[in-house]
Amino acid sequence: MADDKSKVWGGRFQKGMDEEVEKFNASIRFDARLYAQDIEGSMAHCRMLAKQGIISDDESSQILSALAEIKREMARGEIPLDEVHEDIHTLVEKALVEKIGPIGEKLHTGRSRNDQVSLDVRMYVREAIQRVARLIRELQLVLVGLAEKNRDLILPGYTHLQRAQPVLLAHHLLAYFEMLKRDGQRFQENLKRVNVLPLGSAALAGSTFQLDREMVAKELGFEAISENSMDAVSDRDFVLEFLFASSVLMMHLSRLCEELIIWSSQEFGFITLPDAYCTGSSIMPQKKNPDLPELVRGKTGRVYGHLMALSTTMKGLPLSYNKDLQEDKEALFDTVDTVEPCLSVLSRLLKEVSFNGEKMRKATEEGYLVATDLADYLVGKGMTFRKAHETVGKMILFAMDQKKELSQLNLEEMKKFERKIEKDVYGWLDPASCIKRRNLPGGTGPEAVKRSLQKAKEELES
Amino acid sequence: MADDKSKVWGGRFQKGMDEEVEKFNASIRFDARLYAQDIEGSMAHCRMLAKQGIISDDESSQILSALAEIKREMARGEIPLDEVHEDIHTLVEKALVEKIGPIGEKLHTGRSRNDQVSLDVRMYVREAIQRVARLIRELQLVLVGLAEKNRDLILPGYTHLQRAQPVLLAHHLLAYFEMLKRDGQRFQENLKRVNVLPLGSAALAGSTFQLDREMVAKELGFEAISENSMDAVSDRDFVLEFLFASSVLMMHLSRLCEELIIWSSQEFGFITLPDAYCTGSSIMPQKKNPDLPELVRGKTGRVYGHLMALSTTMKGLPLSYNKDLQEDKEALFDTVDTVEPCLSVLSRLLKEVSFNGEKMRKATEEGYLVATDLADYLVGKGMTFRKAHETVGKMILFAMDQKKELSQLNLEEMKKFERKIEKDVYGWLDPASCIKRRNLPGGTGPEAVKRSLQKAKEELES
Amino acid sequence: MADDKSKVWGGRFQKGMDEEVEKFNASIRFDARLYAQDIEGSMAHCRMLAKQGIISDDESSQILSALAEIKREMARGEIPLDEVHEDIHTLVEKALVEKIGPIGEKLHTGRSRNDQVSLDVRMYVREAIQRVARLIRELQLVLVGLAEKNRDLILPGYTHLQRAQPVLLAHHLLAYFEMLKRDGQRFQENLKRVNVLPLGSAALAGSTFQLDREMVAKELGFEAISENSMDAVSDRDFVLEFLFASSVLMMHLSRLCEELIIWSSQEFGFITLPDAYCTGSSIMPQKKNPDLPELVRGKTGRVYGHLMALSTTMKGLPLSYNKDLQEDKEALFDTVDTVEPCLSVLSRLLKEVSFNGEKMRKATEEGYLVATDLADYLVGKGMTFRKAHETVGKMILFAMDQKKELSQLNLEEMKKFERKIEKDVYGWLDPASCIKRRNLPGGTGPEAVKRSLQKAKEELES
Amino acid sequence: MADDKSKVWGGRFQKGMDEEVEKFNASIRFDARLYAQDIEGSMAHCRMLAKQGIISDDESSQILSALAEIKREMARGEIPLDEVHEDIHTLVEKALVEKIGPIGEKLHTGRSRNDQVSLDVRMYVREAIQRVARLIRELQLVLVGLAEKNRDLILPGYTHLQRAQPVLLAHHLLAYFEMLKRDGQRFQENLKRVNVLPLGSAALAGSTFQLDREMVAKELGFEAISENSMDAVSDRDFVLEFLFASSVLMMHLSRLCEELIIWSSQEFGFITLPDAYCTGSSIMPQKKNPDLPELVRGKTGRVYGHLMALSTTMKGLPLSYNKDLQEDKEALFDTVDTVEPCLSVLSRLLKEVSFNGEKMRKATEEGYLVATDLADYLVGKGMTFRKAHETVGKMILFAMDQKKELSQLNLEEMKKFERKIEKDVYGWLDPASCIKRRNLPGGTGPEAVKRSLQKAKEELES
Repeated sequence: MADDKSKVWGGRFQKGMDEEVEKFNASIRFDARLYAQDIEGSMAHCRMLAKQGIISDDESSQILSALAEIKREMARGEIPLDEVHEDIHTLVEKALVEKIGPIGEKLHTGRSRNDQVSLDVRMYVREAIQRVARLIRELQLVLVGLAEKNRDLILPGYTHLQRAQPVLLAHHLLAYFEMLKRDGQRFQENLKRVNVLPLGSAALAGSTFQLDREMVAKELGFEAISENSMDAVSDRDFVLEFLFASSVLMMHLSRLCEELIIWSSQEFGFITLPDAYCTGSSIMPQKKNPDLPELVRGKTGRVYGHLMALSTTMKGLPLSYNKDLQEDKEALFDTVDTVEPCLSVLSRLLKEVSFNGEKMRKATEEGYLVATDLADYLVGKGMTFRKAHETVGKMILFAMDQKKELSQLNLEEMKKFERKIEKDVYGWLDPASCIKRRNLPGGTGPEAVKRSLQKAKEELES
Repeated sequence: MADDKSKVWGGRFQKGMDEEVEKFNASIRFDARLYAQDIEGSMAHCRMLAKQGIISDDESSQILSALAEIKREMARGEIPLDEVHEDIHTLVEKALVEKIGPIGEKLHTGRSRNDQVSLDVRMYVREAIQRVARLIRELQLVLVGLAEKNRDLILPGYTHLQRAQPVLLAHHLLAYFEMLKRDGQRFQENLKRVNVLPLGSAALAGSTFQLDREMVAKELGFEAISENSMDAVSDRDFVLEFLFASSVLMMHLSRLCEELIIWSSQEFGFITLPDAYCTGSSIMPQKKNPDLPELVRGKTGRVYGHLMALSTTMKGLPLSYNKDLQEDKEALFDTVDTVEPCLSVLSRLLKEVSFNGEKMRKATEEGYLVATDLADYLVGKGMTFRKAHETVGKMILFAMDQKKELSQLNLEEMKKFERKIEKDVYGWLDPASCIKRRNLPGGTGPEAVKRSLQKAKEELES
Repeated sequence: MADDKSKVWGGRFQKGMDEEVEKFNASIRFDARLYAQDIEGSMAHCRMLAKQGIISDDESSQILSALAEIKREMARGEIPLDEVHEDIHTLVEKALVEKIGPIGEKLHTGRSRNDQVSLDVRMYVREAIQRVARLIRELQLVLVGLAEKNRDLILPGYTHLQRAQPVLLAHHLLAYFEMLKRDGQRFQENLKRVNVLPLGSAALAGSTFQLDREMVAKELGFEAISENSMDAVSDRDFVLEFLFASSVLMMHLSRLCEELIIWSSQEFGFITLPDAYCTGSSIMPQKKNPDLPELVRGKTGRVYGHLMALSTTMKGLPLSYNKDLQEDKEALFDTVDTVEPCLSVLSRLLKEVSFNGEKMRKATEEGYLVATDLADYLVGKGMTFRKAHETVGKMILFAMDQKKELSQLNLEEMKKFERKIEKDVYGWLDPASCIKRRNLPGGTGPEAVKRSLQKAKEELES
Repeated sequence: MADDKSKVWGGRFQKGMDEEVEKFNASIRFDARLYAQDIEGSMAHCRMLAKQGIISDDESSQILSALAEIKREMARGEIPLDEVHEDIHTLVEKALVEKIGPIGEKLHTGRSRNDQVSLDVRMYVREAIQRVARLIRELQLVLVGLAEKNRDLILPGYTHLQRAQPVLLAHHLLAYFEMLKRDGQRFQENLKRVNVLPLGSAALAGSTFQLDREMVAKELGFEAISENSMDAVSDRDFVLEFLFASSVLMMHLSRLCEELIIWSSQEFGFITLPDAYCTGSSIMPQKKNPDLPELVRGKTGRVYGHLMALSTTMKGLPLSYNKDLQEDKEALFDTVDTVEPCLSVLSRLLKEVSFNGEKMRKATEEGYLVATDLADYLVGKGMTFRKAHETVGKMILFAMDQKKELSQLNLEEMKKFERKIEKDVYGWLDPASCIKRRNLPGGTGPEAVKRSLQKAKEELES
């Protein structure tokens, strides 16, 4: 049976907790991670209690200095995480009372673990958003750097994994810049709903003490205070939102990684991954495997899983707080622990990737990638686009039969399909000139890409 | 074998499409829903082509009036949705060419189905967001109305489905107002990323024609144009975001519905659902079932499923467009078709719910809901909160043994636990006075709730 | 307000159903699909009621012939699916009463819609399993056929999408045969739990009439009767199981499709897809896209989504029946409608795929795929495998530097790394001989594959 | 940079692994859990290598005794889990070589980590299935015990959380027995596909050494050997199946827990949970919360999440092994760590639950639960069921108006609705007699339940 003194709610119970249950019930194993947030929150609460005259200044001083000490001890791992303490809140309070006696018990005045845990999680998510935002920005910087460095490289743009039209590598890379930009926005918007102080909601109905919630909010850097105590202690939509923003981010990274994997296959050979970012095989001596992008791609499932997990957990729960909500934390923590290294490791890998420009360029010359441009050429000669499309389709069938590319057909052969085709068609069909014609905003033309790069850099600096 | 003329890409193919494949491949069955968006988008594109001199004014006039006619015909269901037409884009173009001949084929100049479908879906989501936002607001209005109408009703606030502290019904209802407010915000933020024109991206690399993308954006009410063509044709994060905002919304509704179901059980009996919103049993004549809230709760899974479906579909796809993306639409459409009636039917149901004030009030009097307040009372007498908590716990054990509530203990009995307890304790322990003490911002006190109600009404009017 | 007569539970209600609610509540829109199962079930129930003397033989005859007529009319689409009839069960009963008057009302004796809907769904799933099992077998047959037809083709086996070791194409294809075999098993096992008669459970507590449940089970081909009425009307784990078996099947198909897509890229070029199974682009005349495998891969998400949807819906529902369970059907139906054509279309596509043996074989010659075999060769000379692995690794570094494959190093160069290497190493390093050495059961050696093929054919015939 | 000697594939690499990457890549942190399986598998492999003459008996002896020693050291936590060792396989091999030198390196002959990890995971899942099956059986035993002990208790059976018909508590509890029975079946069926030896598949193409796969299978207790090496190293459907069986199990537990929570609310009051299985509140002294069932219900989401995670991870992966598959383990381990204590703690809790028979019985007397039986009574008098249903509906409306239950109407009042009603109706409407009429197999009648209990006990003993 558990030690009566280890709980913060023993009075009404005739029997202590079953040990297996205690272990099953305890969250200290994982919520110990919140110790710094918990203590900072408590310190702000304490200062406010004193200011409001609910505790004395002297009591406040004692509590504050003991809390500061506990924080240092926790940081150094000096306080054992015994499961007899249900959670980090209890652990900290017990440590406090051990240090300064019953005065420590006054800290919990006007507060419940229900609003306290919401506070801690919000502070944690807030910091996670800031770190993730920074890592997103770093990856964006790497992409911009690569795009600039390899400004002249061209490769096939694909649809359906079939060569479609030649594009600038920089343009391709900047597509990911855009995705990451939206990812960053989603995290920032999440922050607005995270950054709301729940303290003062107490268990569910609000506190009876004359707390100054605005003061605590200000001290802890919250932009607003929660408007409804029952909502504040029982919703975790702000965590779901973080998990969702992370899921989309991982989806984007999974696409980038899929490309890195395909590109580093012998068949594509567009890139060479650095040795330091690959692994070998225990049986096949020649192997150099793109483990890292594979892992990032694989971990996408993990983050989706966490989103689904918490969404399921919250479905159909009546108000207000239910113990089911304790399940929010591990999903959140593991998501943070997944997303951060994925971003970081990918940034470092990308910096070291070498692009095989020659192989990429050659790939643009086979597979009729210029067919659309030939159709556009015919439109320029007055044909409707649909007719031009059909005509080029037939020219391709003919060329395939001859085992030639379009630009390898001679003028006579071409003219059989459309008399208006002239010699200028050959210049027109050079992949580089195809790219150059696409300088519309958002297009792959060098001017358009230059403008996008410029804009990207400005955004990153702001 | 399919009719060659039914496709927009026949030229290069030697063999028509297998019929079963054609059916499997076609999206016309479900994307016909986008006809209005498709035609409006085409009209804006057409006007721009004319302004830019890519087609003549006369051609433009013919195309525009034929498109308007097709739109009317589609609205009246006069155009059969034959699967020989792959999709709505093809169907409209074929109908156009039937009406005005080869000139109709010019419409597709500078455009691909890849950017066209992104356009249509964006326009659809934009409208869906507006409708959903309106329905959310309506439900908020109903909640505010109910809260005002039943301003004096109190009921037990629950945690862990155990009676915790008395709260105002209005406070309980406003918790949902807050959730819905955040839901509304999420949809609005989604809108910013939806409302970006993809047209001009063509298949993936941008168009070679001198399109005026800004003009089209303005005509169609888009706030920005896409910055990268490869990104524009291949991402659907904006759809995922809609599915996520819908998932959280449904989660919130599932919680409300869970409460309606529990409250209308014979055991709780807090509410009576109107006959017109219930169903009976084919075998049990007495049954009046809360089918509607059950259905809404059940449909939560459905929307989660769609979010998971599209998230999975997009995982690991290389750039740019892949056919897998065709799977975005049914998930989206069914989500819209689920969320809208859930909101609407729930608003109407809630308006008709009658609250059994007497039963709710009585429930606040049994189960020691005032225990926290008794502890607070003891804190007022100088005890630490932890000590007070423990003392009240013991008083409850004693009272349970006597089969009494706390307020049924006489002063002598109370004093055995703490001498400082005085006669004023009885007034203090009245549920209504417990509520009155919680007027801190966000609390359940009448003043606090009045301020929240006022604020809610102002927000709804803005 | 709805027509009182359209419901089977009107008596206790003072107010008819709100029309929007009626529509929201009705399942007839989708459960009409169950009409044949519903009527067959009713006929067996009717025959049993007569045999037990609960209704007369004459009543039974009238009911049976009217039901048969209704079934024919439903098949011909002659009965409108008005939402005023909540569901297919009500619709059939109302049609019955219209035909033969109040006698028709006797059919529902000893039965509730709760056990009736479970019956219908079970009959539907049973048939779906049989169809899906047949389609799986068909796809297995195609794979075996392809393996036999292309028995001599070799290609690189990949790990991490890097060339690893040469394998027989037949071996590669038979890997999918094995996956499908397990998929088939899962559906068969699902069948055991589906094929249990719920009728007799009535609403939840069992019927008071002297029904002969065994007789009905026998008539309808059920292997057992349900053991507990509350379980029978409220669980849908048998549907979840079908959705799961379908999810894994789709996962396997998604892998096969991923390979078809990669193999048909210009870079790999291992296969050519038949024109009749591809589509083109509205803008790029050269495109021939592997839409079909992309769609199958994309639809994997959809089936996962349905599994997640129903799992979520069922979480936390108290016993016994709750309206939430109505959400089981659309997820189920759409899964069936997805899985069946995916299997069927893929079978037909695969039959028409042509393998480019030359290209595949050449790919086995570049990329040091024989490195493991060289290590094995060294082990044969007495080296430990780890040492041999390291030695070959260094030989590869040297060879890469020389831009040579291992078999292009001359003996002298080889001996620098290990003196025991002899001339026989060159024969040893031929990809075909590498394959031949792997005749262990389950290996890619021709003998092993021949045995597997034989076994596969026997299994398909059984 | 990492120590070259820590990897099993260094030879071909010019640069050691980046440290952050190494950490990201390593699985030792979580796969160390597989050490016992890994070593047992290696021992069987070693004995076979010796028997086949691939290594000498002496070498085998040395390896075996060193492995046994390593196993003991690992069990005692004496071997540090340095991330420089990628995974448990590497760690064990390195420890082996440290002990006995280069001979240790011979162990890996004819084996790859790809087949080795599949082996280890299969052995782990096999054991987990056995433990979970045992725990399921324990919970079934508890349910049977409770049913027997409380054989005479009746309570309302609910549909839609509305009182429907009186049932025996034993019948209600046995509904969960049936669900768990099917859960047990699913795990057993899973076992068949788990219990297949992958060893001999090597990296992907099978080994070139003359391994005796059947011998290893027999030694390790596998029922079969894998039929295809590429399938064997790259599929994880057997893990998905475990996750699915766990998901359905958790779904069932979540329903049971939902009922425990509802039943222990003050409003229902059907059960009292033991103090030792509840927790209190840090602020509300009266609270005794059903944390344990809430946690189990909440953890349902977690297991669903893992199923979704791995399903997503596996979608669209080409053959054969890809690093993404490393993500199978944590989902699996956490599922095992969740399911086991949920079952165990729930078994123990249920044993201690006390049922408030009086309160349950009283609840069957209010809410017209006998209405169906009254309709059946009227059918006995010759009315069709539909007519009887309607008549009873009207009687209920009348009774509600009179604030009476049906059995409180006098005969005269009853006869106004149907003249054939006689005095015997009152005995008929007693809840206990309603239950007694339901002795059809599967029904809630005492005889039927007795038979089910008997059958349940026999099944548990078999």
